[in-house]
Amino acid sequence: MRPKIYLFGDSITEESFGDGGWGASLAHHFSRTVDVVLRGYSGYNTRWALKVIEKVLPAADHGGAAPLAVTVFFGANDACLPDRCSAFQHVPLDEYKPNLHSIVSFLKNRWPTTRILLITPPPIDEEGRLRHPYVENPSNQPERTNEAAGAYARACVAVAGESGISVIDLWTKMQQFPDWEKSFLRDGLHLTPSGNRIVFEEVVRKLMEEGVSLETLPVDLPLISEIDPSDPLKSFQQ
Amino acid sequence: MRPKIYLFGDSITEESFGDGGWGASLAHHFSRTVDVVLRGYSGYNTRWALKVIEKVLPAADHGGAAPLAVTVFFGANDACLPDRCSAFQHVPLDEYKPNLHSIVSFLKNRWPTTRILLITPPPIDEEGRLRHPYVENPSNQPERTNEAAGAYARACVAVAGESGISVIDLWTKMQQFPDWEKSFLRDGLHLTPSGNRIVFEEVVRKLMEEGVSLETLPVDLPLISEIDPSDPLKSFQQ
Repeated sequence: MRPKIYLFGDSITEESFGDGGWGASLAHHFSRTVDVVLRGYSGYNTRWALKVIEKVLPAADHGGAAPLAVTVFFGANDACLPDRCSAFQHVPLDEYKPNLHSIVSFLKNRWPTTRILLITPPPIDEEGRLRHPYVENPSNQPERTNEAAGAYARACVAVAGESGISVIDLWTKMQQFPDWEKSFLRDGLHLTPSGNRIVFEEVVRKLMEEGVSLETLPVDLPLISEIDPSDPLKSFQQ
Repeated sequence: MRPKIYLFGDSITEESFGDGGWGASLAHHFSRTVDVVLRGYSGYNTRWALKVIEKVLPAADHGGAAPLAVTVFFGANDACLPDRCSAFQHVPLDEYKPNLHSIVSFLKNRWPTTRILLITPPPIDEEGRLRHPYVENPSNQPERTNEAAGAYARACVAVAGESGISVIDLWTKMQQFPDWEKSFLRDGLHLTPSGNRIVFEEVVRKLMEEGVSLETLPVDLPLISEIDPSDPLKSFQQ
């Protein structure tokens, strides 16, 4: 059986198999080596994630074998401001951090050998959020701010440090590029194809640092380039 | 556990999670309902597929539960001409047809409730094949012709009829559009994003005819639209 990489997160994970999506790009990259399994839940925060993680990542799945890796990508909804139009998704920072720790502990207990890769929420383009509201927003104030997202991103990075696991600081990374607001964010929060590309490249890089790469993974069945044209069936004996 | 749809085929399946690919589009379409599992093997024909099918689709996978559906998309390599540069991939028409029947029988025996969906090889743009050779081709004759692909497509349609299962006649379907040679085929054989779109739409349509659709499939965990903003945790009790 092929090893698996689970993508566990919110809408930025759920829609990652759309055009140019980072999840689809990962599945394409690992097309003969790994099954990339989509477990994205739009709108979810870490509080809700903790309620469902046992169902989402059952021990018995995959014949009980540990997945190669799990990406954990929550925070964009936790960081909704508590006094704005998406307040019901808000999780206070001092709950977000222990929640993330609990998710990491759950994974470490269940699968001690599985690589856990945290991803911080992306930066927020507040102007984009006002132009593309998800719910009625009479206040005309963005329900997410870049400053708040940054605080959750720093907490996420801290959790990774305290747990000794990998993290992609997407909030910081994206803001190193000019025009990140429009090049990487479609609606101030969700990713454009270029934004997806950054996540894909960072995930591949982090996995490689953890020893998971095309160079090290066994290929499922002989590649066409390895099949002897003068006796193809030889490759399929035994 | 989520139900699965396996995509079993050659390079047109293996690369189906690339940009705009039909496999990624299916995974996106079914993002909260089905795991779309990629089992594409570049260059493979039905003869080789039969040698590996037991390994590719193990009974024990998925806890032994039957997948919802399997797409079977072979023929483009079988149809390589026997006297041209890719002859080692060629499988004669009078072997291709029983091979496909054997693949269908294997699936019916293993999983009697699983929908089996055959897909014929696409049409061939011979000019495109000459411009994008995969191997050295001193003869300057295309290794695949549209006429040969058509014969294999008709055999595939016949197998579906004889087995009482669904088929997408991609060879015929694509040629109903003007400029199919360049709009749908990147190199005379593999699909452009528009070509991928046709496969995606046809697979969704055929699955719907077989009762597999977003309307009938259970959604994995509550949708954000179903969560009560005044008491979100209610959705996660029990």
